[in-house]
This record gives sequence, structure tokens and C-alpha cells, in this order.
Amino acid sequence: MPRFALKIEYDGGPFAGWQAQANQPSVQGAIEAALARLDPGFADGARIAAAGRTDAGVHATGQVAHADLQKNWDEFRLAEALNWHLKPAPVAIVAARRVPDDFHARFSALERRYLFRLVSRRAPVTHDRGLVWQVLQPLDAQAMREGAAHLLGLHDFTTFRSTMCQSASPVKTLDQIDIEEVAMPHGREFRFTLRARSFLHNQVRSIVGTLERVGAGSWSPERVATALAARDRAACGPVCPPHGLYLTGAEYPDDPFRD
Amino acid sequence: MPRFALKIEYDGGPFAGWQAQANQPSVQGAIEAALARLDPGFADGARIAAAGRTDAGVHATGQVAHADLQKNWDEFRLAEALNWHLKPAPVAIVAARRVPDDFHARFSALERRYLFRLVSRRAPVTHDRGLVWQVLQPLDAQAMREGAAHLLGLHDFTTFRSTMCQSASPVKTLDQIDIEEVAMPHGREFRFTLRARSFLHNQVRSIVGTLERVGAGSWSPERVATALAARDRAACGPVCPPHGLYLTGAEYPDDPFRD
Repeated sequence: MPRFALKIEYDGGPFAGWQAQANQPSVQGAIEAALARLDPGFADGARIAAAGRTDAGVHATGQVAHADLQKNWDEFRLAEALNWHLKPAPVAIVAARRVPDDFHARFSALERRYLFRLVSRRAPVTHDRGLVWQVLQPLDAQAMREGAAHLLGLHDFTTFRSTMCQSASPVKTLDQIDIEEVAMPHGREFRFTLRARSFLHNQVRSIVGTLERVGAGSWSPERVATALAARDRAACGPVCPPHGLYLTGAEYPDDPFRD
Repeated sequence: MPRFALKIEYDGGPFAGWQAQANQPSVQGAIEAALARLDPGFADGARIAAAGRTDAGVHATGQVAHADLQKNWDEFRLAEALNWHLKPAPVAIVAARRVPDDFHARFSALERRYLFRLVSRRAPVTHDRGLVWQVLQPLDAQAMREGAAHLLGLHDFTTFRSTMCQSASPVKTLDQIDIEEVAMPHGREFRFTLRARSFLHNQVRSIVGTLERVGAGSWSPERVATALAARDRAACGPVCPPHGLYLTGAEYPDDPFRD
């Protein structure tokens, strides 16, 4: 059966998360329902696998999933047909690519990339509602960068993972954590870019929630190092809300979406 | 009575427009209802006046209105109190300033500025839904710029105004019309910036809808000049939808929001 990789964008707001769950709207469920309109295997219950299982409310601009179809679809027509059947859900197939049988959206991925959008301003956000995490106080980007520097590289991230995390090991390598400060029409936005082979459950939200405390001046940058060294979930800052978080991409040995 | 200027941001999606209308949700109505919680004059039916009366679905990041209050409010506390009472409407007072009695948000304005966000891509937009106008075909920015150049300066804009327009004269000066092309994660965005002392009803949407035809290759850039010279509404291209349009600011002789 021909295997296809799908690059997927979605607004996580209306969903209980990526993963299909009984009686809950999920992104995976929406895409599988669209596939079932095109392919007998999915009408019979075939499933898709994805690079990242995003939580409720988390967005994506570059999620990747793969599906085995019974017909060898033209890539463009497959994306168009899926988008037709996905309407009106805020989920879009931005590209479809035929891939080798050994491509696996989850297990072949060498890296995941996330963006977190944190906005500091007094007046409630309007157009970006549900798309950013808003705080009211000013934030010090340089202090947040100093705090973040302690997290770069190979560490035991027990402090920064959910107690529900099912990963075999809390030891991960964080390859990038950059913070860009952008002036908005009213207020300031802080864009966190994180890259790692894989992330622990709630790792990005635990890190951003902690660094926000540093930016607000409640935590010193050095306290991030102390919290990491504690290897204790209780040492973490507050976990921030999901709606500022975006899965922006996954990297593969032979990237099917490289044009 | 102390007069205050308010700088206002809103998502036009849920509103029948700026202007208060019986039995229709309006931005003006939402702000006057919030003012009525703070000020006896507004509880008795006082009204506000605005720089631009945006249509249903049109957004703002820099609308300006003025209100006469019975109490001399601290500017910061006034904005905070109004934002509190505006919740959960997607309307935010981003600044409040005490202004002289002869300041009038509509009649003192020397200039209005608009942004129009036009996105070209195949897959339906997700996060920007309701915030941009999406078309499916590629657009030629340079051709749109050539077409737009014919509209700069002083002209009879009869072709580009609604037959419902109540302006005394169709003659207006368009001081700026720039088109910036921005790469998106998937697709391309065309950001139109327009500046004029005042605009006719539906002028921006008539212009952008016409220029989109030029960008798509259906119209030559020169046909924009022909359409303008016709001074005939029937010569206009299709009027584009409201949800890509933003009132971004108004200019005053002594700008109350200049910090």
C-alpha cells in the first residue's frame, strides 16, 4: 500500500488534543474521518501516526503524520480532497508527499521544533485570543535568555516534565532555546523557539512557565539551574497554558517536504 | 466635562459594524455599555464619536473615539475599568488620554490608515480564519503595485465607492497605497497599506478586490486606470470581503497618543 506523509496545520482550540479519544474531538480523529471518505482502509478503522502528540489546545503549523492508502493518489489531489472533507474544522493539510514504506512520522523523526508565543500587555488581546499566552506585567527578555541558557544541552529534565509523562527516561538533549522579542502594535511579544530530538510531556510549557517567572523578576536566572539540578517536579515554576504553543515542524533523514 | 480619547482594538467578526444599531451587536454599543457602568451620563444615553465607522466584520488595531465623562479619571484606571467591563467581547481599550474640549475623534482627524491582509494559498487558513481574505491562486505583487499606482493622488473615486456612500463628494486624495509581500509558513501574504484624509464607503474593499483581479492576471494593471476614469461603479472589480480589513490608526494635529 502506498504510504503518504501529510504536513498538517491546526488550531488546537476546539480539540481535546492530537490523539483520538472516545467521545472527544481530536485532530487525529478529524483527519481519519476525512481519510475514511476517500479510502476503504480508513473506513474500516485504519489509523495514522504523528510526529508529536500535542495536548488539548496546542496548535501546529508543521505537524507530520503518515497514512497507508489503498490507491496511489496524486499528492496535490490528495491534499485538496482531504481539505474538502475536513471543512469546517480548523485543520488543513498543507502538503502531501508519497514516502517510502519505511518512513514513520513518529519513529523516523530526528527532531521536533516548537514555537511558544507569550504576549505582555495590559489590554486583553483581541485578534490573537486563543493564539498566544498573555501576561499583564512587563518581561525582561535578557533575564529569560540567561535562565534558558541553563537548560541547553543534555540534562535530566525531571523538574520540567509532567508527573503523567510516559517517557522511559527523563534525560533529553535540548538543542535550541531562543527567545526573540517583537514589538506589537500595543505591547510586546516574546517568541520562544525550541528544538530537540524529542520532548517530555509538558516540557515546553513547564520551561516557558518557569522562564516567565524569571522575566517577571520573581525568579533569578540562576534559580532555573537550581530547579533543573533538583530533578524534582516540585521545583518547577507554574506550567503555562497550552494556547501559546505551536508544533512548527519535524525533521527527517530524507525530508519528504523539502522542495 | 473632561473629554477622553480612547484608542481601540477589536475583532470585527461578531459585530454588525462600529455603529450602534437597534438589536444588532456593535462595537460602539459594547463600549457605550461599558462606559454606562462607570459614568452616569452614559447610563443616561450619552454617545461616543469615532474616527472611522467600520463596516460589519471589519477589524481595528487603532480606532479612535472620544467620550465626555463626568469624573476626571486617571487615564490608566479608565482604560483598565473599561476593559474589565468589556469582557468577554473582543474589544480592548489599548490607551485612554485626557484631551482638550475641542478634540473630536471624527472631525479633528487629518488622516485615516488602513491595512488589508490578503493571503494566497491552497489549503484553508486555520489560525488566521476571519483575520485575512484568502484566495487560492498565486498573485503577482508587482502587477498589483502597477495597478495601484494609478489610484495614488487626487481622483474622482466614483468607481470605487458603494452606491450607498453618503459622502458629499466622490473626489478624494489617496496619499499612500503600498503592497508588501510576506512569505508565510505555507503560502504568501500581501499586506496593503492605505492612507488618506478620509475614505469613501467601501473604497478600500473596492480597491483591494480590483487589485486582486490584477494580481491574478484577469485584469491588466492599465485597466485600473480605465476603470477609475470611467467614474462608473459598474467598472469596479468585485468588492472583497471585510474580514481582511483593519483600521490601524488616525492622525490628529496634536496626537493624544504620541508618547
